Amino acid sequence: MSRIGVLVSGRGSNLQALIDAQAAGQLGGRIVVVISNHAGVLALERAAQAGIPTVVLERQAFASRQAQHLAIAETLSAHGVDLVVLAGFDRILHPEVVRRFQHRILNIHPSLLPAFAGSLHAQADALAYGVKITGCTVHLVTEEVDAGPIVLQAAVPVFDDDTVERLSERILAEEHRILPEAVRLLAEGRLRLEGRRVQIDRSAAPA
Amino acid sequence: MSRIGVLVSGRGSNLQALIDAQAAGQLGGRIVVVISNHAGVLALERAAQAGIPTVVLERQAFASRQAQHLAIAETLSAHGVDLVVLAGFDRILHPEVVRRFQHRILNIHPSLLPAFAGSLHAQADALAYGVKITGCTVHLVTEEVDAGPIVLQAAVPVFDDDTVERLSERILAEEHRILPEAVRLLAEGRLRLEGRRVQIDRSAAPA
Repeated sequence: MSRIGVLVSGRGSNLQALIDAQAAGQLGGRIVVVISNHAGVLALERAAQAGIPTVVLERQAFASRQAQHLAIAETLSAHGVDLVVLAGFDRILHPEVVRRFQHRILNIHPSLLPAFAGSLHAQADALAYGVKITGCTVHLVTEEVDAGPIVLQAAVPVFDDDTVERLSERILAEEHRILPEAVRLLAEGRLRLEGRRVQIDRSAAPA
Repeated sequence: MSRIGVLVSGRGSNLQALIDAQAAGQLGGRIVVVISNHAGVLALERAAQAGIPTVVLERQAFASRQAQHLAIAETLSAHGVDLVVLAGFDRILHPEVVRRFQHRILNIHPSLLPAFAGSLHAQADALAYGVKITGCTVHLVTEEVDAGPIVLQAAVPVFDDDTVERLSERILAEEHRILPEAVRLLAEGRLRLEGRRVQIDRSAAPA
């Protein structure tokens, strides 16, 4: 059974999707710690309500971003975490942390990567660019931002009268669907890397 | 009724989709000339079989690419063309031609732009990158390659056991669907540019 650590920064709606999937026995693992880089965010409340230990590690408590992120890694290790989920974490994870959990960190990005990679407002960018289809991507985190191997994607149509808010909401609904699914696939050992392609074993779950 | 000119270079399967749409009364215009930059290609046979005049303008017959492309523009104008379709045309259209038919040239690209823009083998690139969703895009041609306003897009799933051939074939089926539809929308005056977003008027066809 995978021990899952979730990194959050804000509202935590993707965290909630993970908590709900776990409650339904659909996560393939157990969330053992939620770490936030901001105090007082809703994500921490959601974790607490689900009985999950929370840790706050704010930037200003550390001499450097690296020191902060190494503390995050230490906290994950101390909780025996073997699978990390970035669920709206608003910073680029330090390369040392990425290396420490190589191919064990999932991130969700609100576009069909490689389109709008690296953007912190990918939904607004997609709308301004005028694409007719956008979506979201769950990928393994590597040292290059938003460029790791892709696990799952979902397409979302853009409507002529869309606002950033409405489009973001429709994308978010798909995020809540594919993020728990990707966590389960990784937790159950169903992902195999071939170069940068992720092959998925969808055979029946092990007994 | 729009007078449509189609530029081809090879097999002409997208040209065939346009010919079929015209025969079904679904193109919103009439193809009045097919121009190829290569002699002897299947696209020319398809045009001839449909009774459409064909013109071959090969690079070696001209002093420069610019001279060749201006001859293409002259040929389009001589046939009274007001809407140009690049249907597998394998060269970047000279900026002077683009300016001459501003917002009247459609191109189809086998990816969900802006992903894999500028690629001459976007299907292979998508497969190698490991995306789970790709597709095709019909866009207005501007001077910047593959960066013009997007008219229509279609999403196509990538399967774990896909080859470039199988994926290309599935994308092509969608190209054959959205290219004639985009031509009709442009021919019927149903596209409106807002910045670089294309708004589509889908109200009932004018009487």
